[in-house]
Amino acid sequence: MKTEPEIIPSGGITSPGGFLAGATGAGIKDKDQSRLDLGIMFSEVPCTAAAVFTTNKVKAAPVILSQKLIKKGKTSAVVMNSGCANACTGEQGMADALEMTELAARRVGVSTEDVLVASTGVIGVTLPMGRIRTAMPKIVLSAEGGHDLARAIMTTDTVPKEVAVRADDYIIGGIAKGAGMIHPDLATLLCFLTTDAAIDGDFLAKALRKAVDISFNMVSIDGDSSTNDTVLIMANGRAGGKSIIKGSRRAGVFQQALNKACIYLARANARDGEGATKLIEVNVSGAVSAGDARLAARTIVSSSLVKTAVHGSDPNWGRVLAAAGRSGAALEPDKLELYIGNIRVVKDGAPALFNKKEVVKHLDGKEVYIALNLNMGKAGATAWGCDLSEEYVKINAEYTT
Amino acid sequence: MKTEPEIIPSGGITSPGGFLAGATGAGIKDKDQSRLDLGIMFSEVPCTAAAVFTTNKVKAAPVILSQKLIKKGKTSAVVMNSGCANACTGEQGMADALEMTELAARRVGVSTEDVLVASTGVIGVTLPMGRIRTAMPKIVLSAEGGHDLARAIMTTDTVPKEVAVRADDYIIGGIAKGAGMIHPDLATLLCFLTTDAAIDGDFLAKALRKAVDISFNMVSIDGDSSTNDTVLIMANGRAGGKSIIKGSRRAGVFQQALNKACIYLARANARDGEGATKLIEVNVSGAVSAGDARLAARTIVSSSLVKTAVHGSDPNWGRVLAAAGRSGAALEPDKLELYIGNIRVVKDGAPALFNKKEVVKHLDGKEVYIALNLNMGKAGATAWGCDLSEEYVKINAEYTT
Repeated sequence: MKTEPEIIPSGGITSPGGFLAGATGAGIKDKDQSRLDLGIMFSEVPCTAAAVFTTNKVKAAPVILSQKLIKKGKTSAVVMNSGCANACTGEQGMADALEMTELAARRVGVSTEDVLVASTGVIGVTLPMGRIRTAMPKIVLSAEGGHDLARAIMTTDTVPKEVAVRADDYIIGGIAKGAGMIHPDLATLLCFLTTDAAIDGDFLAKALRKAVDISFNMVSIDGDSSTNDTVLIMANGRAGGKSIIKGSRRAGVFQQALNKACIYLARANARDGEGATKLIEVNVSGAVSAGDARLAARTIVSSSLVKTAVHGSDPNWGRVLAAAGRSGAALEPDKLELYIGNIRVVKDGAPALFNKKEVVKHLDGKEVYIALNLNMGKAGATAWGCDLSEEYVKINAEYTT
Repeated sequence: MKTEPEIIPSGGITSPGGFLAGATGAGIKDKDQSRLDLGIMFSEVPCTAAAVFTTNKVKAAPVILSQKLIKKGKTSAVVMNSGCANACTGEQGMADALEMTELAARRVGVSTEDVLVASTGVIGVTLPMGRIRTAMPKIVLSAEGGHDLARAIMTTDTVPKEVAVRADDYIIGGIAKGAGMIHPDLATLLCFLTTDAAIDGDFLAKALRKAVDISFNMVSIDGDSSTNDTVLIMANGRAGGKSIIKGSRRAGVFQQALNKACIYLARANARDGEGATKLIEVNVSGAVSAGDARLAARTIVSSSLVKTAVHGSDPNWGRVLAAAGRSGAALEPDKLELYIGNIRVVKDGAPALFNKKEVVKHLDGKEVYIALNLNMGKAGATAWGCDLSEEYVKINAEYTT
């Protein structure tokens, strides 16, 4: 029996057994309905489910509704749309979110309270419910529909993000979106995960939180966290076998597989940040506590000055140290050791002798690795982000207009 | 006798009596010495002095040295340079900072321990001490030299920042620099203030901290705080009269004048942020506490998405609410009321009816006002920043190379 979880090439959210999905162009993004923007994920049997949501105090209507529905730990379907966040939309927004679950429930033949809802897009605009009512019946569900669904939740994303991981006798599948407004603040984007494993609800919730903490919560694109962030997992038990419970060998493997799926999607999101040309991976080691390591890694990867330096392949390592210094993490400047790629540029807090050309060559690549050793303790953390380009500014200066 | 402090046109750091300044091109920024980059501020009589420094744990050598020297609350001169931050430079950096104070002390004829030092520029590079030794004797001090000194501390600043405020029978003068790496994290830039008022040392320190808190600490350019931030004030008592002490009428006027000078320079810094085309002023009112108001105002003005929307004159007000929501400030989404310019765009947390063209017209201006009323309590705060442009990215992707 396999114990090392592995990625299934071209897999996605409908790779686990018993899950169907589909999407259509409802005309939310474009009136001509040329782009997919409305979709449903459905499990043929009711699922154990768990989710984490944005910590932003300004929450979108679908987040408020789904937060309420998920409390029972069960669900059968999720309806989702892009192009409109249904946030800051008052009572109308809540009525619309509810109607979306009603329309989807009718489409798939379950009760309304067994359908969750998620939206992403512009804030402060109400959903075009007329067009959504017309489009919902057109959604065709299939075991291959996950790929369409991955596209239907894209906003400024340039590529869909999908993954499937095989572990033991089951599969975990997932899709995600998120190019801007991504920041480590708990749930950080839209991500939907499925598995045909049978899993105990309490363990599932804890495992999801753990996986999110070391994946999506360690990604920063631009320091803003959204009103709509949702990470959801549904487990339908189709693979058979006893329910996986906390503390068992199978629980360890499941956590490993879930981490793998989440980190894969988190990295895909970072790589596809708005205007991004490079993925940045920051590893902080030698911290006194895990909290300190996380803080330092996220502060470095979020720094506009680090991000622009990476964009320009500028080996301006002082900015990395300055970011670590203001992060709040315990550190002693004289102990800092910094690597860019595998080249040591700082030793004992002062410039090391290094070949500048080699560092620039690494910075010119598609994946930039920055490793900071605080040399104080044994804790570590990894964070992901992307460079900051002129294109980011262009995209965001023209978003609604 | 005047009690309302007023700005003196074309005033600067040498406007108060008894202060002399001068600068030269030492070849730190450009080897051909074409730009001013080394200067001295000097008081003919010893000063009572107070300062606030960066909270970044990675502190430049001149910050560490000046922090030690300022403890006695007295100083006579400050030597300063741009082009090199002398940060992350180890033991050599500390030796160089010390030598700068020695060279300047010799130049102005005071003891070494009566000279403070400040540096700004690239991190991780040591000072070209040979060139500094040659240049120091060339600095000519004069009562008009403040304008040159304001230029000598510029890095990516496009204009010098100077101010003089007249109050009662004395003047407060100041210069500042700071275009990138500016963030609310206590001291946030280089700023030097002078006054010919006689002031009690303890009151001076408290008054400076208070003024910095509502000015420089409310400015954010890019979320990064530097290794070198220093705000310093020197009072030489040349205007005569009794020492101003806490609680007196004159203390109130001095605080008012100092606030005015600091806010003037803070706004000038925000307006001249790297790549900035607009000044953004964010006022948060109706907060439960001053801390909440400050948090919300600074989070909004720091948000990349708000900054890019302002850059593109995009009335995407949802981003302002989303930033407030993640700021940590206590708020209830349904109570939020938002103005752009004097146009109300959100009422009770939902879109208000407004003329989009008028909002765009305001956003097209050189100064953009955003006012958020949380409608919860009575506390308020104002923060300043600038838009985020493609130019910011260009400047910072090419800084050291």
